[in-house]
Amino acid sequence: MNKYDAIKNIIKTIEPLNAEKIKQAYVYMNTLTKPVGSLGQLENIAAQVVGITNDLFPTVSPPGIVVFASDHGISEEGVSAYPKEVTAQMVSNFLQGGAAINVFSKQIGAILNIVDIGVATDIHHEKLIVNKVDYGTKNFLKERAMTKDQAIEAIRVGMIAVENILAKGAKCLIFGEMGISNTTSASALVSLVTGCSLETAVGTGTGISQEMKVKKTQIIKKALEQHNPNPSDAIDCLIKVGGFEIAGIVGAILKAAEQKVPIIIDGFICTAAALVAVTAQPHVKDYLIAAHLSKESGHQVALSYLKLEPLLDLQFRLGEGTGAALSFPLVEGATRMIRDMATFDSAGVSTESKS
Amino acid sequence: MNKYDAIKNIIKTIEPLNAEKIKQAYVYMNTLTKPVGSLGQLENIAAQVVGITNDLFPTVSPPGIVVFASDHGISEEGVSAYPKEVTAQMVSNFLQGGAAINVFSKQIGAILNIVDIGVATDIHHEKLIVNKVDYGTKNFLKERAMTKDQAIEAIRVGMIAVENILAKGAKCLIFGEMGISNTTSASALVSLVTGCSLETAVGTGTGISQEMKVKKTQIIKKALEQHNPNPSDAIDCLIKVGGFEIAGIVGAILKAAEQKVPIIIDGFICTAAALVAVTAQPHVKDYLIAAHLSKESGHQVALSYLKLEPLLDLQFRLGEGTGAALSFPLVEGATRMIRDMATFDSAGVSTESKS
Repeated sequence: MNKYDAIKNIIKTIEPLNAEKIKQAYVYMNTLTKPVGSLGQLENIAAQVVGITNDLFPTVSPPGIVVFASDHGISEEGVSAYPKEVTAQMVSNFLQGGAAINVFSKQIGAILNIVDIGVATDIHHEKLIVNKVDYGTKNFLKERAMTKDQAIEAIRVGMIAVENILAKGAKCLIFGEMGISNTTSASALVSLVTGCSLETAVGTGTGISQEMKVKKTQIIKKALEQHNPNPSDAIDCLIKVGGFEIAGIVGAILKAAEQKVPIIIDGFICTAAALVAVTAQPHVKDYLIAAHLSKESGHQVALSYLKLEPLLDLQFRLGEGTGAALSFPLVEGATRMIRDMATFDSAGVSTESKS
Repeated sequence: MNKYDAIKNIIKTIEPLNAEKIKQAYVYMNTLTKPVGSLGQLENIAAQVVGITNDLFPTVSPPGIVVFASDHGISEEGVSAYPKEVTAQMVSNFLQGGAAINVFSKQIGAILNIVDIGVATDIHHEKLIVNKVDYGTKNFLKERAMTKDQAIEAIRVGMIAVENILAKGAKCLIFGEMGISNTTSASALVSLVTGCSLETAVGTGTGISQEMKVKKTQIIKKALEQHNPNPSDAIDCLIKVGGFEIAGIVGAILKAAEQKVPIIIDGFICTAAALVAVTAQPHVKDYLIAAHLSKESGHQVALSYLKLEPLLDLQFRLGEGTGAALSFPLVEGATRMIRDMATFDSAGVSTESKS
């Protein structure tokens, strides 16, 4: 079987959640010693994790975090506040443990893997997983970002990364990214898949001026007109305006859903990847937990399209998987609640309206 | 010195935050390897904790949780969905480790103390701290909820509880409560202090009908007309429509602020207590971190009055300190960020706009 057929097989294998188990979760939570429904959205998260894992008492610890790093040809056009070299520099920072994702990963006891899926320079470090598809994508204002083979290879790398971290014992997955200029690619994908205007989809990224934002919007507009990607063809979108780390996350999400593992979706870039994954397989949506509402303007429309309610709204715009890592304790709390709380019966507590 | 003078002395000792240190925190955070301001509200929390503790690299672990439990005479009027006995039953549940607060407390590695400050029955358990002011308050529809001596004693109990848990090593404080019918008392206090209408201040508590809500509103209205508490006199408000656990939390908040310890404020009841504490000493406001926006309708107005932005908005309406415990990892994350992240210099990462 060739690589593409193998991917298509995984996509076909992804199942809807277990609706019966979800119903059972709500019935059971109503017997726990708290007013019915009083933990609000946490109860919905608990039920969702039950439905994903097919286990009434699921465990999400330890979480696994995979950060995919890659460069973007489009950065030649000056669409970011940071120089392209920062991608490699930040990967070194991840490997030395100094970045925000390292700090939050340690806090939640996560298994953290860093994958070089397309950084423009070679980085040597024993902890780095090197699965380079190429030394960065092409400048999609001038040509396609990647070939079809590269898109398939990047998806495959993402799938393998998930296999590896699940083998290490991860029970819940977070995907992060590092790639200077990747909001440009993500904005193009969000506009493509959701059909929203580029004005809505394009934000200020790591912090560009209004003038640069207008330029960034025009660049994406021109690229989309030129390549005319088919919004309902995930691979076509990735080839024309994608990024290797984004394609990697698409593969990772698909594999995690196939393996019935809950996925906490970080910010704008990860949500763009989720949109592409859901284009390939609509059931994927039910495996996603939205971590937070990013300050990046296109994030709300992407989450709404996926019908996801974010857990946090704290104006994060950092990426790396940091928002997902910070929201993980809520998902952990949801599962501990259903697993560890006493029932009214077992605790000898009166239920409502007996007075 | 009598008890009341001792309390007044503590109130006088509470200082404003260290503004210079807060400024220093923001300057330092801008040198960390992330786009400036990209961790949004988490950066504000970090700066606030720096200002409270007077330490640029503060620690909030382990957190301490004190749950104050008490009964309410007003429950005779049928204002809750649960019978009064549930207060004592839930205290037993706390002591056996089966309640939501036990589960989340364990998750965050907290020191958890349960204080009986006025439960209507005697509960015997080696882990229970018994500091009963009385066997529940009086029915404030008919008479004052408590005497002045009782209000002072309840505040003192809260202060002692904080001394004890700080002596055990707590670095950040969460106060929880259990008291069937205590939203009735809290709604009266919120309306009094903020000046909002009772229609805004009164909610559905643990889950009462619209009909019961109307009745609850009328009862509070009648009680306020009858007792006419002075909104700018914290003790007068507590005497006339307060609860022992609420007064305990008022004392606990005041003591924690005096000791320069960050306080994570839980939901509606705790915020009502915070309003009373801020009435006694406006500087207290700066020591408060709002955990979440409760589903209880009066919570938003109370938080707005205190100019607090809640970290979570997940439709919790459980109490016990659960919302604060669930938001604690965000406060922990804020302090870890400032303590453990690398700077651009130390990590060799280029800063903005060098390309």
